[in-house]
Amino acid sequence: MRKVSIAGVGSTRFGRHDGIPVDELAAAAGRSAIIDAGVEPERVGALYLGNFVGGMLTGQEILAGLAGEAMGLSGIPCTKVEGACASGGIAFRHAYLAVASGMTDVALALGVEKMTHATNPQITEALNSAMDNRADAPSGLTFPGVFGMAWRRHADRYGTDREQVSAVVIKNKRNGLSNPLAQMGAELRFDEVRNAKPIADPLRLYDCCPTSDGAAAVVVMAQEAVPARDRAIDILASVQSSGSARVAGHPDLCSFDATVRAARQAFGETGLGPQDIDFVELHDCFSIAEIIDCEDLGVVPRGQGGGWAIEGRTAVGGDMPINPSGGLLAKGHPVGATGLGQVYEAVSQLRAEHPNQVPGARFGLTHNLGGTGVACTVSLLARPDA
Amino acid sequence: MRKVSIAGVGSTRFGRHDGIPVDELAAAAGRSAIIDAGVEPERVGALYLGNFVGGMLTGQEILAGLAGEAMGLSGIPCTKVEGACASGGIAFRHAYLAVASGMTDVALALGVEKMTHATNPQITEALNSAMDNRADAPSGLTFPGVFGMAWRRHADRYGTDREQVSAVVIKNKRNGLSNPLAQMGAELRFDEVRNAKPIADPLRLYDCCPTSDGAAAVVVMAQEAVPARDRAIDILASVQSSGSARVAGHPDLCSFDATVRAARQAFGETGLGPQDIDFVELHDCFSIAEIIDCEDLGVVPRGQGGGWAIEGRTAVGGDMPINPSGGLLAKGHPVGATGLGQVYEAVSQLRAEHPNQVPGARFGLTHNLGGTGVACTVSLLARPDA
Repeated sequence: MRKVSIAGVGSTRFGRHDGIPVDELAAAAGRSAIIDAGVEPERVGALYLGNFVGGMLTGQEILAGLAGEAMGLSGIPCTKVEGACASGGIAFRHAYLAVASGMTDVALALGVEKMTHATNPQITEALNSAMDNRADAPSGLTFPGVFGMAWRRHADRYGTDREQVSAVVIKNKRNGLSNPLAQMGAELRFDEVRNAKPIADPLRLYDCCPTSDGAAAVVVMAQEAVPARDRAIDILASVQSSGSARVAGHPDLCSFDATVRAARQAFGETGLGPQDIDFVELHDCFSIAEIIDCEDLGVVPRGQGGGWAIEGRTAVGGDMPINPSGGLLAKGHPVGATGLGQVYEAVSQLRAEHPNQVPGARFGLTHNLGGTGVACTVSLLARPDA
Repeated sequence: MRKVSIAGVGSTRFGRHDGIPVDELAAAAGRSAIIDAGVEPERVGALYLGNFVGGMLTGQEILAGLAGEAMGLSGIPCTKVEGACASGGIAFRHAYLAVASGMTDVALALGVEKMTHATNPQITEALNSAMDNRADAPSGLTFPGVFGMAWRRHADRYGTDREQVSAVVIKNKRNGLSNPLAQMGAELRFDEVRNAKPIADPLRLYDCCPTSDGAAAVVVMAQEAVPARDRAIDILASVQSSGSARVAGHPDLCSFDATVRAARQAFGETGLGPQDIDFVELHDCFSIAEIIDCEDLGVVPRGQGGGWAIEGRTAVGGDMPINPSGGLLAKGHPVGATGLGQVYEAVSQLRAEHPNQVPGARFGLTHNLGGTGVACTVSLLARPDA
C-alpha cells in the first residue's frame, strides 16, 4: 500500500437545496474538489459516492454513475456505497483504498443526500431503514428513541446530567455560527436547550441534528502525484468496522464497539495515540452521541464526556477540541455527505484555514457512525510537515 | 496486486422466497460459500454486498451489516455497493480488490434481492430508479421500452428478425430446464414465444426476465492461501466501467459502451482474446440484450448475434456457448444477486460440475450490466491448470 494524500476538497452548504437534483448537488461538490486539487478531471480513475436514502426519498438510484456523468467522468468505475449514516466515510475509505492499492493515482469520493423536500413521516421511515427492522421496529423505536435510551443509560452509570449534555449542544451550535457551510448555528442558553420541544425523552429539539440537504467531496491522490504538496493533507489511516445493528446486540448503549474497534485499529496502524490528536470531527447525530463517541474513540476518558463538555475542555482552545465545525448538530446531517463533510472540515483545519481554527493543528481525527452502531469509519489525517 | 482465486461459491435457488427476510437470504448463500471454500468464517476480513432496491421494496438498508451479523462476521468492514443491475458484479470486484491489494486474505461477496412480494407498480417504480429519471422518465419509459427500442434499432441496422431473437429465448429457457437453481426453465416453441403477451413492442413476455428473489455468494482468497487448490478457480481480471445513464447518451442503442470498454480492458489485462473464451454468462435481462451484449463483448461478430443464436452457435456444443445456466431469462434476475449468480455458474463450469457442462471449459467470462448501460462489470475466470 502506498502513501496517499488529500489533494482537494469541496462542499456545498448544508441546509436546504430546493430545485437542484441530488446528482447535480453531488457533482457541484465534486467539481469544487477537483478544482481545489488542481488536477485534470481525466486523471480521476475511480469514483465512490456515499448515499443512504436516495432511492427511498428521491426515487433515484445509480447516483454514482449519474454524478460521474454530470461531471464528464463517464467510463471510469463509479460505485455507490451504503452503510447508513457512515456512507460518506465508507466512500472516502474506498477512494483511499483505490489509490493506496495502486489501482488509480486519483480517486474522487462524493457524498450526497437530499431530504428536506420529504415529509416528516417519509424521512422517519427512510431513516429507520438504518436499524434492524425485525428486531427494533416492532416496538415503534426510532433513532431519537435509541439515543434517548443511551442518554438514560449514560446518566445512570456515570452521573451524566442534562447540563453536561446541553453543553455539547451549546458548544456545537456556537461553533456552527461562524461556519459558512453550517445549516443551524446558534447562540443558545441552557434554559433554551432544556425548554425546547421534547422529541424522545430526555432528548429535546436542539439535542437532535436537523434534516438536511448537502454534498461534500474529496480528491484523493498518490502522495508523489499531488500537484500542490503544501496544500495536501496526508491520510495516515482510514479504517472501517461494523457492529450489531440491533439495540439488543449492544451489551451497553454507553458504547458502540464499532467505534472502539475502528479507533483502536487506526491508532495501531499509525503508532499515534489520542494524546497526539489536535481535534476531532465526530458523529454527533444527537448531543449524547458526542459524549459516547469521544469516550469510545479514547480522546476523552470513559464516563467523562459530559464533564469535559461543561468544563469547556472540548471547545476550541480546550484540551481536545471536538466538532469545531459545529458537527452534525449545527452543521446539519445530509446523511451520505456527512462523513465527507467531516473530512472537508478536517482538511480546512490542517491547512490552517478553518473559521474556528485550532491553533497549530497537525493531526485530526474524523469519525462517522451508521445506524445503531452497525457501521463506522475512523480516519487519521495529518499536515504533511507533521 | 497479488493473484486471487475463488475458493467457494454458494447460491439459493432463484425464484420466490416467501417468509425469509432479505438479509437472511443473503446469509444463507454466504454460509454455503464459506462451507464450500473450507475456510474458517473468522478468516473473512471484508464483506461486500450487492443490492439494488432493498430500501425501496423492503424498507431495509444496512444489508451488508445485517447479513454480516447474521453470519457472525460482525466487526469486519461490511459494505453495500449499488450500481443498479450490476450491483452483484461490483460486489464481486470489490471482494477481489480487497484481496488483490493485500487488505485481507479472504473476502466474501454477497448479492441479494427480494422483489416478488411487491406489486407490479412498486417493482416497476423501483426498477426505474436505475434510469436517469429526469431524462427518461417523463416520457413514460421503462426498461422493457428501452430494450424494445434497442431491438428495433438492431433490426433496422443488421436485419435481426424475430425468429433470431426468439432463438435466444428458446435456448436460454431450455438451458434453464436442467439448472436446479433456475426459476423458469421451459421447452418453448417459436410460435409460443411469438404469440405470448406483448410487453413493450416488439418484446413479448418470454423476451423479458422474470421478477425474482435470490442470493448468491463467492469467497475470494489470495491464491497462495486457498485450502483446496484443485477446486479453486482463478480470477484473471475483474473490471468495472460506466457509461451514460440516459437513452440519449448512447449514440446507438445497438451497443453499450460500458460493456465494450470493460471487455477490452479485461482482455487487455490478461492477454486473452475472445477466441480463448470457452463460455460466457452475460446479462440477458431481455432477449435482445443477449444479442447486443455478445457483440459488445466481442465474442460474436458485430451484427451477427441473432444469426449465431438461430444457428445454434451460442448453445452448449456451439462455437461460443452463451448462458448455459439459462441466463437471466430462465434463471431469474434477483437484481443484486445476478452478477454473483453468474460467477457461481462460471465456477461450476470451470470445476466441470455444471448441469449444462461445456466440455473442457478452461476460460469463462461473466458480464453484468446496470441500467441503460450506466454500470458494467466483466470478469475473466480460469481453471487453475489453464
